[in-house]
Amino acid sequence: MSWGVDNLPYGVFSRPGQRPRVGVRYGDKVLDLAAALHDEVFAASSLNPFMARGRAAWHDTRTLIQNKLTGDVSVTERHLIPLDQVRLHLPFEVADYVDFYCSLEHASNIGRILRPGSEPLQPNWRHLPVGYHGRAGTVVVSGTPVRRPHGQLGPGSFGPSGKLDIEAELGFVVGVPSAMGSPAGAFEDHVFGVTLLNDWSARDIQAFEYVPLGPFLGKSFATSISPWITPLEALPRIPGPVQEPEPAAYLRRRADWGLDVSLEVLLNGEVVARPPYSAMYWTPDQMLAHLTVNGASLRTGDLFASGTISGAEPGERGSLMELTWNGTEPVKLAGGETRGFLEDGDTVVIRATAGDLTLGEVSGSVG
Amino acid sequence: MSWGVDNLPYGVFSRPGQRPRVGVRYGDKVLDLAAALHDEVFAASSLNPFMARGRAAWHDTRTLIQNKLTGDVSVTERHLIPLDQVRLHLPFEVADYVDFYCSLEHASNIGRILRPGSEPLQPNWRHLPVGYHGRAGTVVVSGTPVRRPHGQLGPGSFGPSGKLDIEAELGFVVGVPSAMGSPAGAFEDHVFGVTLLNDWSARDIQAFEYVPLGPFLGKSFATSISPWITPLEALPRIPGPVQEPEPAAYLRRRADWGLDVSLEVLLNGEVVARPPYSAMYWTPDQMLAHLTVNGASLRTGDLFASGTISGAEPGERGSLMELTWNGTEPVKLAGGETRGFLEDGDTVVIRATAGDLTLGEVSGSVG
Repeated sequence: MSWGVDNLPYGVFSRPGQRPRVGVRYGDKVLDLAAALHDEVFAASSLNPFMARGRAAWHDTRTLIQNKLTGDVSVTERHLIPLDQVRLHLPFEVADYVDFYCSLEHASNIGRILRPGSEPLQPNWRHLPVGYHGRAGTVVVSGTPVRRPHGQLGPGSFGPSGKLDIEAELGFVVGVPSAMGSPAGAFEDHVFGVTLLNDWSARDIQAFEYVPLGPFLGKSFATSISPWITPLEALPRIPGPVQEPEPAAYLRRRADWGLDVSLEVLLNGEVVARPPYSAMYWTPDQMLAHLTVNGASLRTGDLFASGTISGAEPGERGSLMELTWNGTEPVKLAGGETRGFLEDGDTVVIRATAGDLTLGEVSGSVG
Repeated sequence: MSWGVDNLPYGVFSRPGQRPRVGVRYGDKVLDLAAALHDEVFAASSLNPFMARGRAAWHDTRTLIQNKLTGDVSVTERHLIPLDQVRLHLPFEVADYVDFYCSLEHASNIGRILRPGSEPLQPNWRHLPVGYHGRAGTVVVSGTPVRRPHGQLGPGSFGPSGKLDIEAELGFVVGVPSAMGSPAGAFEDHVFGVTLLNDWSARDIQAFEYVPLGPFLGKSFATSISPWITPLEALPRIPGPVQEPEPAAYLRRRADWGLDVSLEVLLNGEVVARPPYSAMYWTPDQMLAHLTVNGASLRTGDLFASGTISGAEPGERGSLMELTWNGTEPVKLAGGETRGFLEDGDTVVIRATAGDLTLGEVSGSVG
């Protein structure tokens, strides 16, 4: 099955009238870990205390859960709760949130749209994974309604954004902190797992505000993540694409951290894009190395995301900005409707698989 | 005295072998609030729980402390601990950190330095307080050593920053949260107090990385704040400067939140600049209104800073970038030394007063 023992993502759930606690998804049920493993770390309302335990504990716990679910299930069964009896919560307390810009196709498309006729990539793009800090306090769990933001759309123009967009991304969740003053260690020693992320964007607000200090209110109103954090250990890995020029020493890949994840973006139930994560230029280990090369520390709960995932084909673009070429080539939906950007009432679902593994979905409606 | 009953800033202190707790500075002593007021909220190791109580509680507590210190002091006296017997800690847990760009002189100077011959201000600057999110996890308390960051200084060039700089700023600390989806309420209902802030900056790293998503590693390695948070209530207020064009309705000033704070920047003990906060174009209430106009929520512990404070005179500039015109006109120090940017071993102190009130200082050495 697609949520089998080779998957086992972690989340935070609650039953009516009870406090949130940590569980693992198995089939259409959630395993109550505090009860099943007799470990109080899972009675917390976030994954942070467990994530802080580190890689050896993550592996041992996963093995223990796999054994419980494949051995004599008569004991474990009573701790499996049907998903329709629980509510899912934001799975971890977000410390700092960083968003990167790792897709060559996405960065090139945006360059072509905003600066037609000139070189689409900035001079720094092939030398480092460009990134910026986003707002941690507005990271919300899948299903949370998203209010269309108001803002300045140009000189003397204020109102609701007319260019509300999505960005289909993968997010990486830090478990083990690092000290200030030195770069972090190996990727797999710090990063606990992966989430699906929708970086909601108001393109008109962003366009007016972002020079010279980058995106701010065009992004900070909401960022949605999937409720299930897939452990790094569960993900099939592939080499990343060839990089030219060869990156600086601190960015050289020491292991295969390319991920063969296939995403789908659904707008009101229809698939409008199929972005391939395998096409990403900068791999997540390179993002982490870059993030800390200046001595910035990591905290448990840090979240860093890939930036919009876009492939080379038009149907592989992970934002409406690219899919509709800034609204000039609207997407056609069944029933004759079209969309340049999102309208009120629209629902966006981003779902993903990695081989036989599902990463679930992140959804949100514009309300 | 300069730390009298009209001042009473809050901080977090510890005695050897004891846990950090909340105190108020009075003269050269710190008042142990949990002991003096019999209130467990002050036994926390951060100001956050107290700050979350809100404006009425802040006012009542301040009045109570003032009464204790001016009435029969025989009881209170035993809870006053000499400052040389305590260690000062980061006074609050930083939720999100936002840095603005509110000084017309600073933004104009940077424009002139980086784009000589063209209009120094970007088209958005007079319409909104430009800002971006910084790294909350590397906000540190005054006295914490700052390691010179390494990074990419240009294509194929990696090494320690050769342009390590400071930015003299005021930071505003949020006590009362706001809900996602609507703008925050009145400034004084949310903001607890003010801190001095040094936004350490690596100008060469920043210059290569910042297009198009803004500053990242050039800033994220360290941000220092003063240990004492001055309550908003203690600060003398003045009108802000005239704004032309008139800002959008949500940014119109509803009260005087200009602050008559005078700063001094000391490099190795010598005053190299005297930035006047009264010259800031955008006032802190406007920063807060802008930060939340898109529906972004506030959390207890959010920190937003003014950006570099620079006045119209050359000696009033709050960064070395401006004081030395990007290193081309080095500052002359006593003994014949000069500085374009910071050298290893240099110590920077930023101190400030508001009328008779002192805001203390934030210091840091490059190690």
